[in-house]
Amino acid sequence: MIPLSSRDNPLVKRARALAHSARDRRKLGQTVLDGAHLIGAALDAGMALDALLVSERGQGSEEHRALLARAPAGCTVACLPDALFAQISAVDAPSGLMALIDTPAVAPPQALTGSVLVLDGVQDSGNLGALLRTAAAAGIRSALLSPECANAWSPRVLRAAMGAHFALSVFEGCDLVALLRAYRDAIIVTALGDDATPLFDADLRTDVAWVFGAEGGGVSAPVQALATRRVQIPMPGAMESLNVAAAAAVCLFEQVRQRQR
Amino acid sequence: MIPLSSRDNPLVKRARALAHSARDRRKLGQTVLDGAHLIGAALDAGMALDALLVSERGQGSEEHRALLARAPAGCTVACLPDALFAQISAVDAPSGLMALIDTPAVAPPQALTGSVLVLDGVQDSGNLGALLRTAAAAGIRSALLSPECANAWSPRVLRAAMGAHFALSVFEGCDLVALLRAYRDAIIVTALGDDATPLFDADLRTDVAWVFGAEGGGVSAPVQALATRRVQIPMPGAMESLNVAAAAAVCLFEQVRQRQR
Repeated sequence: MIPLSSRDNPLVKRARALAHSARDRRKLGQTVLDGAHLIGAALDAGMALDALLVSERGQGSEEHRALLARAPAGCTVACLPDALFAQISAVDAPSGLMALIDTPAVAPPQALTGSVLVLDGVQDSGNLGALLRTAAAAGIRSALLSPECANAWSPRVLRAAMGAHFALSVFEGCDLVALLRAYRDAIIVTALGDDATPLFDADLRTDVAWVFGAEGGGVSAPVQALATRRVQIPMPGAMESLNVAAAAAVCLFEQVRQRQR
Repeated sequence: MIPLSSRDNPLVKRARALAHSARDRRKLGQTVLDGAHLIGAALDAGMALDALLVSERGQGSEEHRALLARAPAGCTVACLPDALFAQISAVDAPSGLMALIDTPAVAPPQALTGSVLVLDGVQDSGNLGALLRTAAAAGIRSALLSPECANAWSPRVLRAAMGAHFALSVFEGCDLVALLRAYRDAIIVTALGDDATPLFDADLRTDVAWVFGAEGGGVSAPVQALATRRVQIPMPGAMESLNVAAAAAVCLFEQVRQRQR
């Protein structure tokens, strides 16, 4: 393990840049995983780690030591003073362990199969992470993100997704219209109007491309136009709509329920 | 309409304190509603507003002018320069309209009836707001919050809840154990183990006290002990768990579905 104590060390500078700047993450093609849960999920998925950084206090954790022992070949392992580690970290309560990884460069799929999550302009990091987590839990294998979505590999999205990035393929910057035009199963958007089918009356046992839109504006018109079905979530209470991640959870797990029957 | 241009004006100072400080909100017994949607929901619910503040640019909005025209008797209405308004606001993109209201002082209920949302230590503002919004949409009328939960009337929770605060009764600082001991219907916690009933096999047509816990630690042991049923959400994908607000959405809308059959 390499001891690092200078904030001018190139690895320290790179980690800080990756933790704090979307531009640097794009430029360097890397991102930061913060905490044992995410790093464990990455290792379980066979991801290569570029570097593992542990704080002095973080070394005291048995969970951290077990992960350090799993560092793959070619992974730099370094120990930092707590104060320096805290300066690097983008989170309020640094866990004491972070990893640098190359952001997976996933080419958009040639053809979509199976049920997929399609996100059109979801910009809130917490919502985006929760959506990926919910989709992965529901057994969905692919997520397509429009260019207007938040960066899927930012520390905040990674934290909210709790390892979902390693359980499904995340395709960023997608041309949703082109991909959905070629999709052969149901393309479903949620709608608020009474002209839409109540969710619980819709047959969801086939594969579905589930489309969810921006928190304010919803799904863009060209994508809306490709929907083969519009469903509405019945809301007995006096609210107009649900949070987008809550709406997706209701829809995706209604599909899980129907497929189990 | 009163023009205000000094940052030392008492109303301006109070608005800034309420927008930024949980301590000041507690001390003054007031909070801030930011944006037309929340203010409209408060007016629809018959809430008294203490003051309405509009920015110069915000006066250009027809929606804002319609709300200003609905200002109840006794409500101070003031106009501020855009820069001063932005200094007060706690949100990144100030809407141009905010209201000061007395935080409803709701005494904990003597006895619980109907289905209720019970939150034990939910500290993330976004999750807390989404949980209240989901519960209100599902037709639940009461939410009980343990003292460890985030402050329900903070600007961030209010924004995430999108008016749910005015569609259900929010009881903060509750003694959950005492209240649940007196509850006569099903008390349900979600669990991850295989010993719990799959959600879709549980009969949810009766009233239910739905208990959800802290993001990390879950429901506290004394509250767990009062649960009459443990349910698990079937997860075909390779994730351990859902975000708490997503889990609640799945549960509460499965209850909606069963009650509609």
